[in-house]
Amino acid sequence: MNLVVDIGNTRIKQAVFEKGKLLYQHQFEASQFLEKTKSVFEVYPNITDAIISSVKPLQNKEVELLSLFCKVHVLSASSKLPFFNEYATPQSLGVDRIALAAAAHCLYPQKEVLVIDAGTCITFDFVDGHGAYLGGSISPGMMMRYRAMHQQTAKLPLLEPLETKGLIGNTTETSMHFGVINGIVCEIDGIIDRYQAQYGYLTVILTGGDVHFFEKRLKNSIFANSNFLLEGLNFLLEHNKN
Amino acid sequence: MNLVVDIGNTRIKQAVFEKGKLLYQHQFEASQFLEKTKSVFEVYPNITDAIISSVKPLQNKEVELLSLFCKVHVLSASSKLPFFNEYATPQSLGVDRIALAAAAHCLYPQKEVLVIDAGTCITFDFVDGHGAYLGGSISPGMMMRYRAMHQQTAKLPLLEPLETKGLIGNTTETSMHFGVINGIVCEIDGIIDRYQAQYGYLTVILTGGDVHFFEKRLKNSIFANSNFLLEGLNFLLEHNKN
Repeated sequence: MNLVVDIGNTRIKQAVFEKGKLLYQHQFEASQFLEKTKSVFEVYPNITDAIISSVKPLQNKEVELLSLFCKVHVLSASSKLPFFNEYATPQSLGVDRIALAAAAHCLYPQKEVLVIDAGTCITFDFVDGHGAYLGGSISPGMMMRYRAMHQQTAKLPLLEPLETKGLIGNTTETSMHFGVINGIVCEIDGIIDRYQAQYGYLTVILTGGDVHFFEKRLKNSIFANSNFLLEGLNFLLEHNKN
Repeated sequence: MNLVVDIGNTRIKQAVFEKGKLLYQHQFEASQFLEKTKSVFEVYPNITDAIISSVKPLQNKEVELLSLFCKVHVLSASSKLPFFNEYATPQSLGVDRIALAAAAHCLYPQKEVLVIDAGTCITFDFVDGHGAYLGGSISPGMMMRYRAMHQQTAKLPLLEPLETKGLIGNTTETSMHFGVINGIVCEIDGIIDRYQAQYGYLTVILTGGDVHFFEKRLKNSIFANSNFLLEGLNFLLEHNKN
């Protein structure tokens, strides 16, 4: 039984897998790491291996704590990968993007897969049908756009995302909501179009915390899978055991 | 002879118009306001009227200083407008967007005009063929996106914009450049498409400090005019004289 720990920019995700099947998952704040780690091992005492992936510089105490309970693999650019990494600077490839590429290749072997992760940032990652990860792009995530407009201007308010529909905002608030939400939808659809123009038919996966804001608004067909990164981490853990 | 002063989020623009014709324009830092104001009146002593527009709360000293030289109109939501303002909250409509709508209506009367201002933020503003300003949307500008990804994540660097082409970045830097630049291009093209689906043929104006990054990358036809906002301010000054 495997434990997967994904430390993101804003939250930590924890998931338990058995034979490739997701049994449990949970999200929490960084400050809750100790208690949440203890309790997952109480509920799942058969966990033998863990993988920890962090987009932030990892604190030793987190690895040490996990190591008290089971074998731990810390995901890094030096981990063994199930795909060919054609990134020009493999040491700089984020662990989140490594996990997404692993899931793309392992779940859709021999297919061209574009993974779009709508989280703190929106990442686009492309794995071709020969199992080569070619790279992609990174742009600001939904909440980041709202926050940036407030922080970097004198007058715009800080808004919470709103699932509203329309094109022409007639208040500051609706103008900002339509700007952020429609902007991201057009960006995602436009980038998918460009990949399709270059590679033909693609499998497109949409994942990340903001999936539900966008999955029904895109004109392109996509598979929404909010656990894609966790599944990729589990593949990487299996690949790095022993 | 008119003086137009546009105080933006990052810089101040100054322009001199005579009978609707732009004679001179200049950009500078806020700290240079005093010296630049003195020198424009030395070079153009025939300036009789000025309009001042600020997206930041305006300091009294700036208006007082200008008033020593000529009559001054401070643009606000209470200024007389040459178009019908159908914004639901007209008092909250930014002066920059008022100026863009004024230019759209005065330069392209009886046309449907979408003005896209790629500056600190990217604003979309729509004026219909009956001279009604309906509103639009606001999303983060190019430099804001770069800055946000650095400020709001633990590991992404702060990059300067780069006029690079490609789809699939294979380093952190190229991934971020393609994310920001292609993202904005797809966003602008996608939003234009939506307006066109709703209103048919549109005149699309692209303006703002980042025009040159985007004008040649869009699939839609646009008119690039980097002085559109200044021209709108001059129309507003004429409209509010006496």
